[in-house]
Order: sequence, then C-alpha cells, then structure tokens
Amino acid sequence: MQSFAARVLEKTRQLDNPTVLGLDPDFGLMPIDFLEETASSLGLHWPEAAKEARFVEEAIYRYNAALIAATSDLIAAVKPQLAYYEMGGEAGLRALKRTIDCAKKAGQLVILDGKRNDIGKTSTAYAEAWLTGDMGGDALTINGYLGIDGVKPFLDLCTKEGKGVFCLVRTSNASAGDLQDLKLEDGRRVYEAMADLLEQWSQDLFDENCPYSPVGAVVGATWPEQAKTLRQRMPHALILVPGYGAQGATADDCMASFDARGEGALVNASRSLMYAWKKAEQKDFAEACRQEALKMRDALRQARDKHLAQ
Amino acid sequence: MQSFAARVLEKTRQLDNPTVLGLDPDFGLMPIDFLEETASSLGLHWPEAAKEARFVEEAIYRYNAALIAATSDLIAAVKPQLAYYEMGGEAGLRALKRTIDCAKKAGQLVILDGKRNDIGKTSTAYAEAWLTGDMGGDALTINGYLGIDGVKPFLDLCTKEGKGVFCLVRTSNASAGDLQDLKLEDGRRVYEAMADLLEQWSQDLFDENCPYSPVGAVVGATWPEQAKTLRQRMPHALILVPGYGAQGATADDCMASFDARGEGALVNASRSLMYAWKKAEQKDFAEACRQEALKMRDALRQARDKHLAQ
Repeated sequence: MQSFAARVLEKTRQLDNPTVLGLDPDFGLMPIDFLEETASSLGLHWPEAAKEARFVEEAIYRYNAALIAATSDLIAAVKPQLAYYEMGGEAGLRALKRTIDCAKKAGQLVILDGKRNDIGKTSTAYAEAWLTGDMGGDALTINGYLGIDGVKPFLDLCTKEGKGVFCLVRTSNASAGDLQDLKLEDGRRVYEAMADLLEQWSQDLFDENCPYSPVGAVVGATWPEQAKTLRQRMPHALILVPGYGAQGATADDCMASFDARGEGALVNASRSLMYAWKKAEQKDFAEACRQEALKMRDALRQARDKHLAQ
Repeated sequence: MQSFAARVLEKTRQLDNPTVLGLDPDFGLMPIDFLEETASSLGLHWPEAAKEARFVEEAIYRYNAALIAATSDLIAAVKPQLAYYEMGGEAGLRALKRTIDCAKKAGQLVILDGKRNDIGKTSTAYAEAWLTGDMGGDALTINGYLGIDGVKPFLDLCTKEGKGVFCLVRTSNASAGDLQDLKLEDGRRVYEAMADLLEQWSQDLFDENCPYSPVGAVVGATWPEQAKTLRQRMPHALILVPGYGAQGATADDCMASFDARGEGALVNASRSLMYAWKKAEQKDFAEACRQEALKMRDALRQARDKHLAQ
C-alpha cells in the first residue's frame, strides 16, 4: 500500500502544482445568482431557503462540486474545513460526504481540516470518524498539545491504512505567538519544541522509497523566517502551508517550507480561490476559481524555480 | 441573562454535587441484552445491526436517555464527547441532538467535549455549530494553542448568549507533559503560561455577582500538585476536572481544583459511571450508574468537607 506522503508526492509531481483548494463554504460569499438558482431548483426562495436542510446540503455540495470540476486537472488536493460543515448539522455532513466522494472520483486527495485532539480511545474514535469509511479523508489536521498519547492512535491508523495527519506547529494567525513563541529555558520556542516532537513521532515511519512520514506539520506561510528553521527541524514532515492569498502571504513566502528539491510542502488557499469571482471580471464563480488557480500555480512554479536556483 | 458560570454554581449548589456525567457511547461496553433488545425493537439483529444508521442512533440515544433519567436528580451536567458521535456520522449527530435535548429537558447543563480550535471565521463557525441552535450545548471544550485569535470568537458568543468554554490547560493523560511540562526561560511551565493566558482572556468577563468568567479550564485530576498552583493562577476560571474513576484519580485528588468555598470546579466521570454495570452486582446499567453516581457524590462531599476543614 502506498503511503499518504508517497501519494502526495506522486500527485503534486504529476500536476507540477502543490496547491490545495480549501473548501470553506460560506453563503455570504457565494454569488446571489447561484443561491437563487439553487433555491429555485428545490422549489424554494433565497434567502429563506438558508434555513432548509435540503438547501444547505445542495448549495454547499453544488458549489464545491463546481469548483472541483473546474480545477481537478490542476489541483492535487482539497481541504474541507470541518467547522463550516458542522455548522450545517446533518445537512452539512451530507454535503461533506458528497464533496469527499466528488473529490476522490476526480482523483484528488482529501485533507480534512478538523484540528482534532484528544487521548486514547477518543483519539481512535476521531481517527475512525475522519480517516475511514465514507466520510474518511486521506489526511486530517490535528493539534498535538496533549502529547504522544493523543497522536499515537492517529498514527496507528495512518500506517495501517496509508493515511496522514498534519499537526499544528506554527499557525498562520496574528496571535500564533501568544503561546507558540514563548521561549523555553533550553533556547527553543514552544513551536520549535512541537516540531521536535513531530520529528520524534515520525521515527521509523518513513523509508528509502519516500523521505516523508505520515506525520505532517502545519506551518503558516505568514511566518517565512520561522518556516525556514522548521523545514530543517522536521526533515521527514510534509508541510501544509496555510495563509497564502487572503491571509496575505506570497508564493515566495511559501518557499521556506519546501525542501531542496522544491517538494515536501502543500500550499492551501481557501477564500482567494473559492470566492475569486468577487474580484474577477469573470462572473462565473467556477471559471473565476480556475483562472485564479492557474495564476497561483504559475506563481508557485516561478517561486519554486527561484528557490531552487538559490 | 444568567452567565454560564452562574448557572453552574446555582445547579451544583442545588444538588450539592459537582459531578459531570461524561457520555462516551461505546457499543463494546454496553450490556449485550440492551443491544439485542434495541436491535430487536427495530426489527434487526445484533451484532449486524451495528452497521445500520437507525440502530446507531437509537442505541446511543436510548442508552444516554436511560442514564440521564436515572441520575438527573443527582448530577448537574452531562458531557458528550463529540468524537464518539462523529464516528456514527449523521446517525451519531441525530443521537447527539436527541441526547442534548433530553439532558436540557431534565434540567441539566450540557458541556460538549470537542476540544475545538481554529482562527477567526472558522472559530466563529465552531462556536455557532456547538453553542447555538438545536445542537448547541451550554459550553464547549477548546484548545488554546492558536492564541487569542482562536478564542475570541468563542468568547464573543459566550458573553452574548450566556455560554462558556473550557480551555485545555493541563490534560489528564500520561504524556500531557510532552509539551505542557516544558520549562520556559521565565521559570513557568508551558501549562502555567496557558493558565496565565486564560486568566488574561477572562479580564472584564466576570463581575461581583459571580467570581467566575465564561473562560473555564481543563485540569486533569491525575495531577493534583499542578492543579493546586493552577487554581491560584486562574482565580476566575471554572475548572473542569477529568481523570476521576477510570483514569485513577480519587475524590481527594480532585479537591486541588476547588476554591476556598469548595466550589469552582466540576468533576467528570465517563466510563466509571456509564459502564458501572460491568463491575456491579446490579446488572441494570442505568441503576448501576445511579448507584455509582451516589458513591461518587458522597466521596466528593466527604473530600470537600475535609478540604474545607484544612
């Protein structure tokens, strides 16, 4: 069985593109035409329809499916942010299930962004919920604050089923440093200690066929200086890079998380791709997403070539 | 509107009991008679029934409802662990919704244990998903690794709607120290720094009517020494104490998280109450839970009296 990391490398090489499409459905950012048409096709009216479960399911699913259809020949993976689906209750879960299925059929990898964390049997329950069955992604984001007890159940399932996790190390937000930047008496920062734990958890989980383990890391593109040292501290971690686009980081900023071959990282963009229609002349939201995805891919390729030449 | 903390104090005073009943449904620990009867009532057979959504929903709900009926005159709050419901997909969510409704009707507070964490709009989505609407609890557990950006959206909703959060500070598991015990250059441990952040986030969120803010803390009963200093560091945090019973901590161990009036903490027990029938002569699982809950209440009252006399 191919490992998650090997599948990521294969897919990103094939498309020559490390982009991940974040799927954070938000009716407030979708075109009114789309919402009205979807409501009307169900015999409902927008905006009252927003309170109906079948509208919530259909609108989220159709929007995601249109984006996947428009970009799956360019983009290796999608990253549904679980909070937005949980907000929709059962209807949200049904939309998520259909979205996962749609992305898999389009040949994409699915990274579920849930930042889950717990211990023992409860972590096992999260791993089974989100990495197996028809709601199962290829990888799940997790939070390592509870230490190895909380992470081991995920890793057991990852190695058994060829799945992956991405553990928060240095997040992209402004207050990431509140806890993560605190300095330890041994000179490391808290986020560096978290990185060292990840590398430790990765031991024996990689081999000569693939340098990367199932234990990936989340490192925000908004902190390129920190990312540079983190790439070195975690030579066996695939890095998932949020913060590109809407959060202000550039393609060059992202390069700090890539290895010397220009690989080993995935760059996520959510709002800047999903809702590209808001800033585009092109008012078809799926086509606007494709145009923006092409720009992002080309920017990442250029930045990578510059990074490799250095 | 009464704050969450004020409601906790009122309810625990009324019952003279700080116990929280953790609801972690696990078919592997339920009596076979119960599973067979539930399956049969739906025209199904155990164990094949475990794959049927309507069985998953009914069995989880009926088990929880029986425990709530047997103990709601003793126990102030229930704490469903979201992982176990997520594992059941849509059926799990429906069981959770019915459980929440059942506990509320029985006059209990509902603390959803999801350890959620994210930033900005995504944290808002989690807060809306789990603190409002018909899936909304009275409080939600969260993880503060991302700093104030991730916590503020929860707090905004807490103060607006009289809800609460419990942020992980010192967890009950063996490897809690992997990250949480690391020593900072200023002499604090990481978990103490997290406690100081919580106290800072609590500022202006309490008043003379109630000394506790909506920002509670999770501090494992398995670490009484650390709990003692944490109680002092976070004078305005209600403390949710896991680890009693199945994880080995005693009623005396829990007292470190209580204030000088013997209040300000909630003690959770999950498996030791839910599955008390396994160790009891009494084979009715709900009655066995009640007997164990009475023992736990009395042990906590005794320990409290000793704590107050010291």
